[in-house]
Amino acid sequence: MKNNLYTAVLLILLSVSNVFSQNGNLITSEAQLQEMKLALKSDNLFHSAVNDAIEEVAPYLKSGLDVPVPKDLAGGYTHSQHKLNYTIMQKAGMLYQLTGNEQYAELIKNTLLKYAELFPTFDRHPATRSYSPGKFFWQCLNDANWLVYTSQAYSSIYEWLDAGTRDKLNKELFRPYADFLSVQTPQFFNRLHNHSTWANAAVGMIGLVMHDEDLIQKSLYGLPFENLYAKDNDGGDIIRADQKKAGFLANIDHAFSPDGYYFEGPYYQRYAMYPYLMYAVALDRNKKELDIFNYDNKILLKGIETLVQLSNEKGEFFPLNDAQKGMSYYSRELKLAISIAYEHGDAHRNGLLSIVKELNAVPLNYGGFLESNAIAQGKATTYQKRSLLVTDGNKGDKGAIGILRGSRQEYIMKFTQHGMGHGHFDRLSYLMYNKGDEVLQDYGAARYVNINQKDGGGYLKENKTWAKQTVAHNTLVIGDRTQCNAKVEKAESATPELYYFNAEDENIQIMSAKDSIAYDGVHQQRTLVLIKDNAFENPLLLDLFRADLPSDQKLRMPYNYKGQMMYSTFDNQPLNSLPVMGKKDGFQYLWKVGEAPSKGNFNQVNWFNNKVFYTLNMATSAEDSINFVLLGANDPKMNLRNDKAFHWLKTGKKGSNLYASVLETHGGYSYITELAPHTYSSIKNVNVVYNTNAYSAVTFENKEGKKWRFIMCNNNSSSSSKHKLKIGETTLKWKGVYLLEEI
Amino acid sequence: MKNNLYTAVLLILLSVSNVFSQNGNLITSEAQLQEMKLALKSDNLFHSAVNDAIEEVAPYLKSGLDVPVPKDLAGGYTHSQHKLNYTIMQKAGMLYQLTGNEQYAELIKNTLLKYAELFPTFDRHPATRSYSPGKFFWQCLNDANWLVYTSQAYSSIYEWLDAGTRDKLNKELFRPYADFLSVQTPQFFNRLHNHSTWANAAVGMIGLVMHDEDLIQKSLYGLPFENLYAKDNDGGDIIRADQKKAGFLANIDHAFSPDGYYFEGPYYQRYAMYPYLMYAVALDRNKKELDIFNYDNKILLKGIETLVQLSNEKGEFFPLNDAQKGMSYYSRELKLAISIAYEHGDAHRNGLLSIVKELNAVPLNYGGFLESNAIAQGKATTYQKRSLLVTDGNKGDKGAIGILRGSRQEYIMKFTQHGMGHGHFDRLSYLMYNKGDEVLQDYGAARYVNINQKDGGGYLKENKTWAKQTVAHNTLVIGDRTQCNAKVEKAESATPELYYFNAEDENIQIMSAKDSIAYDGVHQQRTLVLIKDNAFENPLLLDLFRADLPSDQKLRMPYNYKGQMMYSTFDNQPLNSLPVMGKKDGFQYLWKVGEAPSKGNFNQVNWFNNKVFYTLNMATSAEDSINFVLLGANDPKMNLRNDKAFHWLKTGKKGSNLYASVLETHGGYSYITELAPHTYSSIKNVNVVYNTNAYSAVTFENKEGKKWRFIMCNNNSSSSSKHKLKIGETTLKWKGVYLLEEI
Repeated sequence: MKNNLYTAVLLILLSVSNVFSQNGNLITSEAQLQEMKLALKSDNLFHSAVNDAIEEVAPYLKSGLDVPVPKDLAGGYTHSQHKLNYTIMQKAGMLYQLTGNEQYAELIKNTLLKYAELFPTFDRHPATRSYSPGKFFWQCLNDANWLVYTSQAYSSIYEWLDAGTRDKLNKELFRPYADFLSVQTPQFFNRLHNHSTWANAAVGMIGLVMHDEDLIQKSLYGLPFENLYAKDNDGGDIIRADQKKAGFLANIDHAFSPDGYYFEGPYYQRYAMYPYLMYAVALDRNKKELDIFNYDNKILLKGIETLVQLSNEKGEFFPLNDAQKGMSYYSRELKLAISIAYEHGDAHRNGLLSIVKELNAVPLNYGGFLESNAIAQGKATTYQKRSLLVTDGNKGDKGAIGILRGSRQEYIMKFTQHGMGHGHFDRLSYLMYNKGDEVLQDYGAARYVNINQKDGGGYLKENKTWAKQTVAHNTLVIGDRTQCNAKVEKAESATPELYYFNAEDENIQIMSAKDSIAYDGVHQQRTLVLIKDNAFENPLLLDLFRADLPSDQKLRMPYNYKGQMMYSTFDNQPLNSLPVMGKKDGFQYLWKVGEAPSKGNFNQVNWFNNKVFYTLNMATSAEDSINFVLLGANDPKMNLRNDKAFHWLKTGKKGSNLYASVLETHGGYSYITELAPHTYSSIKNVNVVYNTNAYSAVTFENKEGKKWRFIMCNNNSSSSSKHKLKIGETTLKWKGVYLLEEI
Repeated sequence: MKNNLYTAVLLILLSVSNVFSQNGNLITSEAQLQEMKLALKSDNLFHSAVNDAIEEVAPYLKSGLDVPVPKDLAGGYTHSQHKLNYTIMQKAGMLYQLTGNEQYAELIKNTLLKYAELFPTFDRHPATRSYSPGKFFWQCLNDANWLVYTSQAYSSIYEWLDAGTRDKLNKELFRPYADFLSVQTPQFFNRLHNHSTWANAAVGMIGLVMHDEDLIQKSLYGLPFENLYAKDNDGGDIIRADQKKAGFLANIDHAFSPDGYYFEGPYYQRYAMYPYLMYAVALDRNKKELDIFNYDNKILLKGIETLVQLSNEKGEFFPLNDAQKGMSYYSRELKLAISIAYEHGDAHRNGLLSIVKELNAVPLNYGGFLESNAIAQGKATTYQKRSLLVTDGNKGDKGAIGILRGSRQEYIMKFTQHGMGHGHFDRLSYLMYNKGDEVLQDYGAARYVNINQKDGGGYLKENKTWAKQTVAHNTLVIGDRTQCNAKVEKAESATPELYYFNAEDENIQIMSAKDSIAYDGVHQQRTLVLIKDNAFENPLLLDLFRADLPSDQKLRMPYNYKGQMMYSTFDNQPLNSLPVMGKKDGFQYLWKVGEAPSKGNFNQVNWFNNKVFYTLNMATSAEDSINFVLLGANDPKMNLRNDKAFHWLKTGKKGSNLYASVLETHGGYSYITELAPHTYSSIKNVNVVYNTNAYSAVTFENKEGKKWRFIMCNNNSSSSSKHKLKIGETTLKWKGVYLLEEI
């Protein structure tokens, strides 16, 4: 905390602040401000947040903020400067309210007057890459960001401004800007999409500041409806075929499942939460009758809780769909979201504080102030991440994400809606983490957000041609084609189906889902079973992937592993001149670096990542084989990482085919002691003993000779149904969807 | 600290300990033990170390220690068990001395009796891979380890044992074992090599315990001399052509330079320090007349200091020569070494404590006890890593390692002796780190120490065929051949030569070295200049690599970078079917993934690693080109990492050729805020303006138009010589080896 430096100055400012403080009331009430000012008399997280903001804004009190003529794409100077301007103005607004120091108000006023000057001098940003080119930015999305932040700054000085300036800014900057983002760009404003949520919030918030009911109504309920059958830059529909409503409330209705999952995935949920929540706070203060935080069964608050669960041990969001890896709940957006959940929510309040403690920072708002107080009072408890099912679809009926957690491993299976323009063709794929490290990865997005040399920081073409393709995920590739022939429309037409989820027994957790859309005529089912048994150091992951084929087809199961290959039972042949594996569906980026036939009916692949060993124990047949592959072909700009995978190939036969494997996490290594315990799997065989559309059964055995049998019923997920099955000479009877027994 | 659990037990034991405690005096005096016992009455690091040891040894007090018939290689059960036995016995010995609990003494006695039983039942370990097969281990080296540790355990109970048992152990186990490691295996005992240091220490320490002067003399001065012109497993000479002495003192004389550098490099220095220091402690207690810690100008203590300097910000040793990356001063050996330096040394004592604080642990010895006390008293100060020259050779005249440090970047240039069997052909190579992360890497060793599935955990064949080759390093490859034709003898025949080193001025630090051995008839010189100027965010690295060729030859400068390529000015052409780059000298493992001609006389390669950007700004000529390469060809077992490099190619002409470049570290990235400041280099050109054998001169300019000139005199390193040089129309005059000026 850099408190000492500023405390003296602050206390002086505080002593005069009650006289000068003015509050436009958009976000914070006068009473809240009075409470928050008291926090500045001692050392605490909120005080640190204020000091950080003072330090950040300080240079611009002298220099002012540059308002350049827009020119650059993301990453360029004018883009970055306009972005800087809104964050500085927003902070300056809060500081003005807290300290009464009019220099902050002057900074905002002067900057806004420059914007008012610039606004009418040109039509749109010169770049034409976006489906909705912006004003100060290349796309309206960034302009909406600007307005969401700047509304807060403007509100802070609204009462302080002289009437003439206020009138000028309202008429020459803000009302035209709100029109620009709404009626003049309906393809941006009227979607069911995160872009429109930003637009709705921006227009609504500035409407609240200016008491402009027309803007508020448009923001909440959208524009008069016109069908616009255009596409956005990511290939998503501008208007969905079934769309009947628009605006902020329609976006809430559309975007969140009853479990609080946001249909584009966690990375975009993180991004989308900011306008949802900031506008909600403003509506909560200024439109009490909407009772926004109770809207739809407290869905906004539930969304925050779900988002926190959708992160690994390090707090990084699972990179499902388009997502840059590394984004985490350490982000500004989540810091804010958690503070709002803390202020307005009731569940897990003190658990959330443990995350705030990890962050060691609170945002500059009333929720942050409350968090700071509660932490100082020692109220933080541990936040528990758990196994859970997160349904998708606004009725919760469009598939789900399943998360099984055990020991320090996390398994995330995806069988959600496609996720529109940001969706990946990855039905029934799963990711695996251990201790927060990726073990089986999703490539994430092919994008370096805001890094100019990589195509301006936007999505690279490889995002579509590689990252979205099925082979970039850990799910079955049939006939070396991408699911749904890589067509968003087809993928949007129907979601996979939850078959079974049960994580109540920590010794056996199961998730199972089915899909019939990805490949014509193919019925797929994946069942992941996390089995905890004292015979093993960590829970085992039993994976049963069933594909019922209408004809013989080539099957390929990619394992996009991280780490170093240690050994495999396959007798790998080196390929001296690396062949590129195909021409499309992502295969054009893959080199085959080795291939080998299987040996007998049990094979192993063993690898090593960040001091831990992993073995895939595979029930194989004689025709099975393996490919070792490396990413990076046809990539002269080196846009892709040189990631690795192994692919388990089967000759798929008409009818029911089964991939059965047991993944074991075992052993360890220290680069300091150089000790390497338990570097081999304890499993010595895995056998498929029965496989039809009705039942799949496997046995597996460890080196000590202990043996287990697992049977899954594939067509009746009832917990009360009774089953009877003859396998070889043994007749088995049980109740419920599965049977696990040591034999 | 798990103190509470044990404190009660300990205090009870302490109350009776004075009666029972016996001390063989090898390592710790009775007076020291009395002091150390006092520490156990409060909470401190030493007390924690004792508790950790109690917890570690506890299970074996019940079960005893298994002493299996030797069978396995490293990583296998019998190997690991014999290793466990000596560490547990050594700790049990210390615990017996500290607590007087005879269970510890019994554990040691019973285990030793099992060893005495087993010892005469077979000749040598069944494995025959080693040039000196061991007894309980596959190689004598591990047996010597056993004896160094077990001597300590044995000493602890020596006086406690009944005379009969003592006599039996002396005659049936220890004296025969000492003979086995010395007279029966002279090719192991009589070398100038870390193996022999272990052997010497083992034989000497057990000699001190048994008061066996014959063994002590052999350990200090070696066996009667016989020339043994054999090779060890790494291709090193058993007896060096110039070798005249052997034994512990000869090994000290031979191995350390006056700067305390150990001739095999830091990884082996870390390993070798243990026997040097433990035997030194024993000699200091029992052979005062040797005054071992003052021997050769306190060389052993200087070695510790140097070793600490030879590590990056994370404490990891620079992986020069054969070295597994990740080994650091967090290792057991360094914990011990630092405690001994703290007890016996006088310089940097309180600085060393800051490392101990980082470790948050002290070893179980008197030095550890002193450290614990000093830390409790708040004596730790900051340890300063600095730029320095570390000479090699026992007279300091066989080359050196140069380290330049500036901001948080570290540049390490190697121009030492070859390093015998563990040496790499990497003269004039440099490594670069930023914030402790590798930026330009040395591959390290191709080895997974103790991981059985990788060839038993020993050196892989790729260690010789890839890791030691020149192209695996960041130094010039001429004619696509490895330096010295990859012959150890040739590389040992002469070292590179220090030309100039000066790190006194933090604004310009220079290191320069020459070599005439690596390639027949070629004179090479590399000059690295670290320039700090406020115009740049970080110091710049100016690199002038000169090669004076006897004929036209292909030149290739590899940059083994870490991270993701961001962009280059080279117009890279993708190569669809990856060609393997060669058949030998390491090229057989490289795929060429892209190639491109240079564009004009200035080119850039820009990459990104762990949130920081790096740009190599290159003065190029029209014939220059670049290769982008990937490691992993001809590696069906996937023993190698798929690391990347770019190679800068020049058409070398007879006479003086110059690679001139400026490496800039710049900008940053956050995956949380997604802000990306300063992703491009500030340099806009680099030009060679003069190049002869006498002088090399370059200019470089930044985007703001500031321009600098640097001239290096290549044939007179005197600081007082006066120079005059005409470049174009300008005549320059200066004093000393270089001139840097803004122009």
